[in-house]
Amino acid sequence: MEQVPARRGRAVRLKQGQAIRIVNTHGTQVVDTWAFNADDPTEFMSMEHLHASLGSIFPSRGDALYSNRRRPILMLEEDTSPGRHDTVIAACDVHRYQGLGCTEYHDNCTDNLHAALAMVGFVRTETPSPLNLWMNIPVAADGKIAWGEPLSKPGDHVLLRAVIDCVVVMSACPQDMIPINGADCTPVEVHYEVVG
Amino acid sequence: MEQVPARRGRAVRLKQGQAIRIVNTHGTQVVDTWAFNADDPTEFMSMEHLHASLGSIFPSRGDALYSNRRRPILMLEEDTSPGRHDTVIAACDVHRYQGLGCTEYHDNCTDNLHAALAMVGFVRTETPSPLNLWMNIPVAADGKIAWGEPLSKPGDHVLLRAVIDCVVVMSACPQDMIPINGADCTPVEVHYEVVG
Repeated sequence: MEQVPARRGRAVRLKQGQAIRIVNTHGTQVVDTWAFNADDPTEFMSMEHLHASLGSIFPSRGDALYSNRRRPILMLEEDTSPGRHDTVIAACDVHRYQGLGCTEYHDNCTDNLHAALAMVGFVRTETPSPLNLWMNIPVAADGKIAWGEPLSKPGDHVLLRAVIDCVVVMSACPQDMIPINGADCTPVEVHYEVVG
Repeated sequence: MEQVPARRGRAVRLKQGQAIRIVNTHGTQVVDTWAFNADDPTEFMSMEHLHASLGSIFPSRGDALYSNRRRPILMLEEDTSPGRHDTVIAACDVHRYQGLGCTEYHDNCTDNLHAALAMVGFVRTETPSPLNLWMNIPVAADGKIAWGEPLSKPGDHVLLRAVIDCVVVMSACPQDMIPINGADCTPVEVHYEVVG
């Protein structure tokens, strides 16, 4: 299997019908995930459109993952974890870490997205809101959110199948200032493979 | 006061310190709302960043409304309604109405955004996820969302004060196929005025 190193991003091109298995190797790692239409980068997986299409903020096994044109771009075919993936929180960025007190550059998922896209020659400027695999953000009835630790276990995986030719980007979230990547705040690597 | 006609959008330039009062004249109308930095349109009010900054999906009176650089762009200074405004649902678009069974063009908030921006000479291509004033979308603990009717009453208003020079866009949502704009599914006009 291929590795997404700790604190880094990777982009993978999938043909229609191919799938990517993303494995939470250590069980504690959040993976910010994006998908773009390979033939028209103005179309991408969109959490705000997904919410309306699914009628839920939590996609489940078997669900389509919708684009900003309200059609499936990926299918969440397999999910061995408890299915708690966040869809309401932005990718971390330099501003996030400055707000947490960082005075020097901190690795972040937004920069990882753009660096990974550049590696496969697919340059974009905007940063869609990501599907944050395994990120555990409960939302209470009064709207308050909490920053939980992942509920996944080592080796849990999701399988995302491409409904159209697309570019999938994963960022092993470098957050080490709050326990979103587990209680010990240690970002680690995850693995993936393209199948089908 | 100025009018946002039923099913239409309007854009207003605000200088730092100025504010806009948006009035839900009939009490039943959802207003999709955006804000862009007047000097750098790549910065805009962002719901996914707002969620992280506020720790909530429901902004309240007195809250800052954050940009994608995680700094306040507007302040929600006044709100006479019960404070139920949606931040998780995309602006409606032609694809939304096609999915609901429309076979002809249907007015929509996404097109209203871009038309309104063009009227003030501020052209953008992307469509940030909007602050949907008075749109009542409860989110249950299991993540399921519901499409409620507005909880506001005729004449309720919000006051949004500009923290930086910005362009604010309002769209009186043309949704008439589900009761998001009240039980009789009739989009109506709202009013606004610039103050300060």
